[in-house]
Amino acid sequence: MTQQRQADLILSGSYLLPASCQNAVIKNGAIAITHDQISAVGTTEQILADYSSARHIHTDHGLIMPGLVNTHTHAAMSCFRGLADDLPLMTWLEEHIFPVEAHLTPEMVYQSTLLSLAEMIKSGTTSFCDMYLFSKEVAKATEHSGMRAWIGEVLYDFPSPCYGELENGFSYLADLYAHYKDHSLISITSDPHAVYTCSPELLTRLGTVAQDNDSLYVIHLSENEAELNTCRERYGCTPVEHLERLGLLTPKTLAAHCVMINDKEIEVLSRRGTSVSHCQESNMKLASGTAPVVKMLQAGVKVGIGTDGAASNNDVDMFGEMNTVAKSHKVARMDPTAMNAEETLHASTLGGARTLNAGEQIGSLEVGKKADMIVLNMDQPHLTPLYNIPSHLVYAARGADVIHSVIGGRLVMENRRLLTLDEGRILAQMREMGQEISRYGKD
Amino acid sequence: MTQQRQADLILSGSYLLPASCQNAVIKNGAIAITHDQISAVGTTEQILADYSSARHIHTDHGLIMPGLVNTHTHAAMSCFRGLADDLPLMTWLEEHIFPVEAHLTPEMVYQSTLLSLAEMIKSGTTSFCDMYLFSKEVAKATEHSGMRAWIGEVLYDFPSPCYGELENGFSYLADLYAHYKDHSLISITSDPHAVYTCSPELLTRLGTVAQDNDSLYVIHLSENEAELNTCRERYGCTPVEHLERLGLLTPKTLAAHCVMINDKEIEVLSRRGTSVSHCQESNMKLASGTAPVVKMLQAGVKVGIGTDGAASNNDVDMFGEMNTVAKSHKVARMDPTAMNAEETLHASTLGGARTLNAGEQIGSLEVGKKADMIVLNMDQPHLTPLYNIPSHLVYAARGADVIHSVIGGRLVMENRRLLTLDEGRILAQMREMGQEISRYGKD
Repeated sequence: MTQQRQADLILSGSYLLPASCQNAVIKNGAIAITHDQISAVGTTEQILADYSSARHIHTDHGLIMPGLVNTHTHAAMSCFRGLADDLPLMTWLEEHIFPVEAHLTPEMVYQSTLLSLAEMIKSGTTSFCDMYLFSKEVAKATEHSGMRAWIGEVLYDFPSPCYGELENGFSYLADLYAHYKDHSLISITSDPHAVYTCSPELLTRLGTVAQDNDSLYVIHLSENEAELNTCRERYGCTPVEHLERLGLLTPKTLAAHCVMINDKEIEVLSRRGTSVSHCQESNMKLASGTAPVVKMLQAGVKVGIGTDGAASNNDVDMFGEMNTVAKSHKVARMDPTAMNAEETLHASTLGGARTLNAGEQIGSLEVGKKADMIVLNMDQPHLTPLYNIPSHLVYAARGADVIHSVIGGRLVMENRRLLTLDEGRILAQMREMGQEISRYGKD
Repeated sequence: MTQQRQADLILSGSYLLPASCQNAVIKNGAIAITHDQISAVGTTEQILADYSSARHIHTDHGLIMPGLVNTHTHAAMSCFRGLADDLPLMTWLEEHIFPVEAHLTPEMVYQSTLLSLAEMIKSGTTSFCDMYLFSKEVAKATEHSGMRAWIGEVLYDFPSPCYGELENGFSYLADLYAHYKDHSLISITSDPHAVYTCSPELLTRLGTVAQDNDSLYVIHLSENEAELNTCRERYGCTPVEHLERLGLLTPKTLAAHCVMINDKEIEVLSRRGTSVSHCQESNMKLASGTAPVVKMLQAGVKVGIGTDGAASNNDVDMFGEMNTVAKSHKVARMDPTAMNAEETLHASTLGGARTLNAGEQIGSLEVGKKADMIVLNMDQPHLTPLYNIPSHLVYAARGADVIHSVIGGRLVMENRRLLTLDEGRILAQMREMGQEISRYGKD
């Protein structure tokens, strides 16, 4: 008998799904974690023979799977969840969101981000890509939670509630890049808001910043008809064409939404290696449309799934999002085979990781990858019987089924109890903040 | 001080929502229940001053609201959940569902119904309308659970795995009507499967049975294009026109789906007082289309929401269904104001009750109505802050947030523990049955 190797943590359960295919399922599977990495994946019998570890968490009827990757959100917008719904976009923004955003403070962003972090961990997300104001606070809260994230400060032509004049935005962003250089969990991104709120000069200058820092360039792109029309009027081309002309469609560009794009534009995105974050629930709720995701995938475009912010969803639950995505494209194309369970799960795990240029690090359970994973309790009525795991994950599971979460080798939730965040305190503070925000809305 | 009246059960919580409107919310609300009825609704202070009771359940951050009404399901199909997905309708039916349905036994239907009952209670549904085979077993399981239900045996022109030749179907149905006459929770319905599987004679004869028993007439109607085309070829008219010509559209007719209907047909349904059960998730998953529900509501058609069976959804969670319904009609109409939260919640409570001709008994929390209600735990990240309760219920809440359930005055779930059903035993039996069904699929 060979000598046992030492791991920091072993997880085992009735099922282990290393990637998004049913035929990859390991029954009675286990995973050994050393520091922040996966050191072995196999049957529980194998792993326990090969490894000893300080901690072993076994879950009967448990499913171990990669943590979900939320490729587009505004975590701090959780403070606006349900503040105003069912309204035309401009009424919603101008009469409800902008007036309260004018009152935003760094502390509000910090607290509201903590709320979304709690919700994300409790619903199975282990990494996310965030764009918002006061993003130093977003990053600080995220560090506190132990989540993995890509975080950017949104820049646009007009003054920001965070940094004031645009020029200050660039130094704010430079601080972020400097502070999180080589951070193990947090990466900084360059985030122009959109083509209709950023001049070509701003778009280009941020492109250079992204390139200089070897980072992602994240932008809202072709979200709805209004954006398309504005861009056409102003520049005589579509938003995708506009970025293409400016040389800003690269393999490091992550475009959120891409609802209003045609076959030719899909071809351009594919050729440039540009990624798309598909935010179906938000696009439905704001009546923007349904992005042609099936065509994008057929053309080889990298597509991830995002919840968008809680103000337009109204949650950040990737399980709910997967369910909606898989069903929406079937009815949009009148084809029940469109966006099947495995494709949808892939877009929420490894596919999503690839849109963040992180497919080598996360998104599947493989030796040498970062140890980002979740465990679901499959011993429940809505998950019984169990014929096909991807099917259940996409069509029947929900966030509340996640019981444990490990990010970068660190246990951040055990038996639904958050270990890095004080949930009770966060909820109490957000209830108070909600009362304050209600008053702003009535100013 | 007047003398206190006696109730059997008092529920109290931070919020009480008697109907589907935010302006009806009672803060620190309570409800007194005597036998199977609601005896009082008010503030906790009022209720505790007026009533003493054997049992008082208080929930901090709890929301007391009407139980959800699932107007169309096939509870026993839970045994096929995830057995086959992402397939064209005919492949799914002919290669996967029919071969296993041929092996159905009364015991399988009984056990599978128990599973759906457990899932429905645990996700906030207190009453449902069911159409399936071996419906004596469905009714027996339902009686066991304490749920309220409208149950019918599906009849069609060909022999049934349950009753064999059609004529036996009528005696099977007569038995059901006799057995459940005046039952406090279970009502029997007359259920022709659809216009393409039932001759005009069968449709008409079942109409007479429904009328003789003063019961609902439940049918799948205009679910997809294939049904529409078949009906046109066979009868030279649409399914709605076909029932209209046969005189079968009445205020006691509940038509499930109605995806493929035009303005003129909506007008006919409205004039006849016929109800519609809207099953959006199933219609999406099978790529049938999106029913014109906004137009139906505008025309005054009674519309309820249904999950359909777990084989085509793949759950029976009405919270998930509400979320999908509210968002789907916004994007289908490109109008963010379509199907707002209060309208969607109404269709899942009182609106749904009215489609079952039970609006006087259930669907809202009013004195004299049946005591069917649920309590949600609002002290959770995804439900914080709380500006508007209907918004949270439709856009952010999910089945797992329901902690208590009372049906007909009886506590059937407390702190998510089922009191009428043995959940562990049901899950173990369904896992075994799942293995058996997997083998049938491979025959």
